[in-house]
Amino acid sequence: MDLGLFTANNTWMLVSTVLVFIMHLGFSTLEAGFVQKKNVVNILFKNAMIIAIGILTYYIMGFNLMYPGEAYSGGFFGFAGFGLDPGPDYVPIEYVDGAYTYWTDFIFQAMFAATAATIVSGAVAERIKLGPFLLFATLLVAVAYPITGMWKWGTGWLDAMGFADFAGSTLVHACGGAAALAIVILLGPRSGKYTDKGIKPIPGHSMPLAAIGVFLLWFGWFGFNGGSVLSGDPEGVSLVFVTTSLAASAGAIGAFVASYLMFKSFDLSMVLNGILGGLVGITAGADVISPGMSIIVGAIAGVIIPFSVVFFDKIKIDDPVGATSVHLVCGIWGTLAVGIFGGANFLTQLIGTLSVVAFTFVFSIAVGYAIKVTMGLRVSEEEEMKGLDIGEHDMMAYADSVESAAFNLSMK
Amino acid sequence: MDLGLFTANNTWMLVSTVLVFIMHLGFSTLEAGFVQKKNVVNILFKNAMIIAIGILTYYIMGFNLMYPGEAYSGGFFGFAGFGLDPGPDYVPIEYVDGAYTYWTDFIFQAMFAATAATIVSGAVAERIKLGPFLLFATLLVAVAYPITGMWKWGTGWLDAMGFADFAGSTLVHACGGAAALAIVILLGPRSGKYTDKGIKPIPGHSMPLAAIGVFLLWFGWFGFNGGSVLSGDPEGVSLVFVTTSLAASAGAIGAFVASYLMFKSFDLSMVLNGILGGLVGITAGADVISPGMSIIVGAIAGVIIPFSVVFFDKIKIDDPVGATSVHLVCGIWGTLAVGIFGGANFLTQLIGTLSVVAFTFVFSIAVGYAIKVTMGLRVSEEEEMKGLDIGEHDMMAYADSVESAAFNLSMK
Amino acid sequence: MDLGLFTANNTWMLVSTVLVFIMHLGFSTLEAGFVQKKNVVNILFKNAMIIAIGILTYYIMGFNLMYPGEAYSGGFFGFAGFGLDPGPDYVPIEYVDGAYTYWTDFIFQAMFAATAATIVSGAVAERIKLGPFLLFATLLVAVAYPITGMWKWGTGWLDAMGFADFAGSTLVHACGGAAALAIVILLGPRSGKYTDKGIKPIPGHSMPLAAIGVFLLWFGWFGFNGGSVLSGDPEGVSLVFVTTSLAASAGAIGAFVASYLMFKSFDLSMVLNGILGGLVGITAGADVISPGMSIIVGAIAGVIIPFSVVFFDKIKIDDPVGATSVHLVCGIWGTLAVGIFGGANFLTQLIGTLSVVAFTFVFSIAVGYAIKVTMGLRVSEEEEMKGLDIGEHDMMAYADSVESAAFNLSMK
Repeated sequence: MDLGLFTANNTWMLVSTVLVFIMHLGFSTLEAGFVQKKNVVNILFKNAMIIAIGILTYYIMGFNLMYPGEAYSGGFFGFAGFGLDPGPDYVPIEYVDGAYTYWTDFIFQAMFAATAATIVSGAVAERIKLGPFLLFATLLVAVAYPITGMWKWGTGWLDAMGFADFAGSTLVHACGGAAALAIVILLGPRSGKYTDKGIKPIPGHSMPLAAIGVFLLWFGWFGFNGGSVLSGDPEGVSLVFVTTSLAASAGAIGAFVASYLMFKSFDLSMVLNGILGGLVGITAGADVISPGMSIIVGAIAGVIIPFSVVFFDKIKIDDPVGATSVHLVCGIWGTLAVGIFGGANFLTQLIGTLSVVAFTFVFSIAVGYAIKVTMGLRVSEEEEMKGLDIGEHDMMAYADSVESAAFNLSMK
Repeated sequence: MDLGLFTANNTWMLVSTVLVFIMHLGFSTLEAGFVQKKNVVNILFKNAMIIAIGILTYYIMGFNLMYPGEAYSGGFFGFAGFGLDPGPDYVPIEYVDGAYTYWTDFIFQAMFAATAATIVSGAVAERIKLGPFLLFATLLVAVAYPITGMWKWGTGWLDAMGFADFAGSTLVHACGGAAALAIVILLGPRSGKYTDKGIKPIPGHSMPLAAIGVFLLWFGWFGFNGGSVLSGDPEGVSLVFVTTSLAASAGAIGAFVASYLMFKSFDLSMVLNGILGGLVGITAGADVISPGMSIIVGAIAGVIIPFSVVFFDKIKIDDPVGATSVHLVCGIWGTLAVGIFGGANFLTQLIGTLSVVAFTFVFSIAVGYAIKVTMGLRVSEEEEMKGLDIGEHDMMAYADSVESAAFNLSMK
Repeated sequence: MDLGLFTANNTWMLVSTVLVFIMHLGFSTLEAGFVQKKNVVNILFKNAMIIAIGILTYYIMGFNLMYPGEAYSGGFFGFAGFGLDPGPDYVPIEYVDGAYTYWTDFIFQAMFAATAATIVSGAVAERIKLGPFLLFATLLVAVAYPITGMWKWGTGWLDAMGFADFAGSTLVHACGGAAALAIVILLGPRSGKYTDKGIKPIPGHSMPLAAIGVFLLWFGWFGFNGGSVLSGDPEGVSLVFVTTSLAASAGAIGAFVASYLMFKSFDLSMVLNGILGGLVGITAGADVISPGMSIIVGAIAGVIIPFSVVFFDKIKIDDPVGATSVHLVCGIWGTLAVGIFGGANFLTQLIGTLSVVAFTFVFSIAVGYAIKVTMGLRVSEEEEMKGLDIGEHDMMAYADSVESAAFNLSMK
């Protein structure tokens, strides 16, 4: 192996790591923008903690659960022990055929790990207790995500079946979406959301923050999908850039048209979620779906968004940021799309995505229920009214605002 | 060609692609910051749509209009057909001398394409109708921008003449600025801007958003200019980094001094636009102008900004974000500067920049006028007063604010 | 030297440059978020000017002060003359063993240079005069920072002693923090901060801006520490990514636990500063401290944060953003930590960090005092009450807000 090529490959993987890292800022501002002003500190706090918890637990056990080694190939579960150590026989340039080092492998995957929990944080926003949420998030990132991740990326049973999930439409997005759905069901909707007179819209407090979030997520997705090539291979990475960008663009157009026909207005949040839907949709097949077909995959994902958002509202699943529509529904769609447009076996794709969704959902319901009956999951109605920022953090997101002045007065 | 070098080159081009992509977030927050609170959703919506439209139309036809192939060398117009296909004889490592792949070529250029339309969106903000704007933007990115782009970068007649425009002071910035000027003229100023008593300042609603925009644009410009080296050539890219950074810095200082002398205050929007002016100014010659001279090019661009802003206001050209000053005026300046400091022929530079500006201006006036008499360009005065966010989108950018509470009440 | 390896190495250094650049946006939004609404334009203005001044002065003299050449090895001071020129014998691929070009060397270091002054700007916010601050910042970046930087990175006396400071816990962060402390002492606290009845909390006006800042700083730190490997060496850079990320994560957890025990609440600003503390702490030893030990270094830095913040408040050092705690205290801690966990000599580390801190503190007190008695350092109490945005800039950060409406009325 040539040292120049090794360095170029590894550099691309590290750049991808940096790009996936900044997706956590994207999630933070997206979720912050879509919640009410009184719950913004809480969302930011959760997202700052999740990335820290995600990286640390992935170092302690997640990586070795997800990549337990060849001994567990084809299996459901394996573990290579606590803590990380490349071992005495480790030669960087021989690791994964000179594409990257052991530590690059770890840190790139670590940035992915926290994503699943971040997806949950948006869906359960504005009424979940902080401590219980952090406990659940820790268990999700440290235990559930690596186990299902191992099924495919750790050469487990789904990989042996020929299941295709390039960068994680199922393993990351549908996984996070399934966990989100479970906890939303356990929590129930925000107070006053679903009334006898109809569904009350609770608009997000800052569209600029939401838009910043979506642009940063797209930005980071170049590393999420581009890094999943697992080398700097020029042909592979550039094709992934093209399919990813076309699908995101088509997702915007799809959501634009569908939401205009449904609501007769130009709905920014639908277009933003349409972009995300397109990105989630192409993630499973960004390496094998042609550019032309990636437009179709993205456009369908974009069209799905308004329908899915309306559907979840109809069945009283209250998800303030639309995370279940974006990550669960479009994640499943994207996984199946590899069976339609990318040469994978459709049935295998269906089995794969449903298995991961089912496992994660059951895990989340079980863990969430155990937390609910012991610590409690939901803040008091009074705290929900006042906002979690005061209730959990004794802080306000915008301290100079009119409300804050009143708040300060009341504290004197 | 060595695979390590090919991978390193291509990786740099893809990193540049990612950096140019995030400039669209820079434009979004810059424009959002400089408009009034009531028009923020509208600006964000336009910017999210423009990037999607830009990438898709560039895939469908723009790339093949801009790079029609050798058969059209020296010409004014060419087209290699709809849709993209690298062809059966395509060998990645041989494409463009092993510097990057076909798909890298496309996606890097695609990120540039939407920029021209984005420049327009800021200048026409706060009074243009959404549908007509999106139609105009589509025609600008899909047709006009690739045609003039071909004149130089597609080896057309300006390239044959020896015209120098490294990364697009003319082809991107003056082009976008000329289109902006045309539509601003067709639209007229915002209501109440120019009165008998003088010019009413309409301050932007968020300086943090504007500042975020300028920093992100500078950040992205490392890819815009650095990627225009079209390889990872260490000497070439690092020199471009230096000239770009020195010109941006000198632009800040130039605008700081000039605006302080003119207005006797420390004007943040002038300094921010001075940075952008410096960046636009060095873009045409970042590869051939020496570091020392790049400071002069940037400083002059910075000084131009306050004069140009005042001038446009005097002739009642109402441009809320200063896009014509930054992109049109500094774009022309930067193109001429290559004739002064960069060894190009001054007359050729003058012919080149005026040709592109004239073509784009005439195209934009013609298309804009046709839209004006058929669909209408401008929202009603009532909608302008209430804001386009409610008028076009039924949404508010900051839903928890005092105005929003009143709005919510009025909806009940 | 192989051209592929040279290109890959240089590309990584340029990517790192871009990442360090965006830290200046991180500092801008962090500081903007932590100050009151009435001082936001002022903070943004200072940060935009500092990066411009930093790059230009580093070109004019800073680089040649910091890297004066072998003739000054082991010394306290050297200077290679004004302006930059790689010289006639310069061969890019031979420069620094084919790791990067001369211009890459300059621009990467130039992005570091402005950091020290930026650290000051947060600590002295909300009461310093703009002109005097910019003068001080210019002298700090152009003179003091390169001199102490030369002691280690320019092969000066600390380098000869074996002092270890990989990416600048001392040379950048403690240096900036010491300058901040000096000017805060000269300035005194904000009016009304320390009263007979106790310490008045003056909360920052936007937690989203602060959080954006911290995420962007972490993002940029991958280039700050990763680029300090001074090549794309896969093993070196990837290890630095891991230690940096683990320390930042542990910093969050450390600050979370310590601040919860101290204040019985989930304090977002402590967690955010805990992340920064962890990053500053690992910066001196990111290349030699093992991943496991980097968790300890980061966790201790995180725990330090709330104690240090309370301590400085107790001795009436008023630092609105906590810069002295993050950069000075954790910078010293990180430098010493290399003596504990990274194999360096503890006494040498102590001498090194105290020398730089002492030199910078004395320099800053002297220059700051000279400015104080000539131009004055502090705005009038009336201006402080009204805010520096109106006082220094005749602008407001959020022009559509209720306060702005009143302000506009009062101007008529």
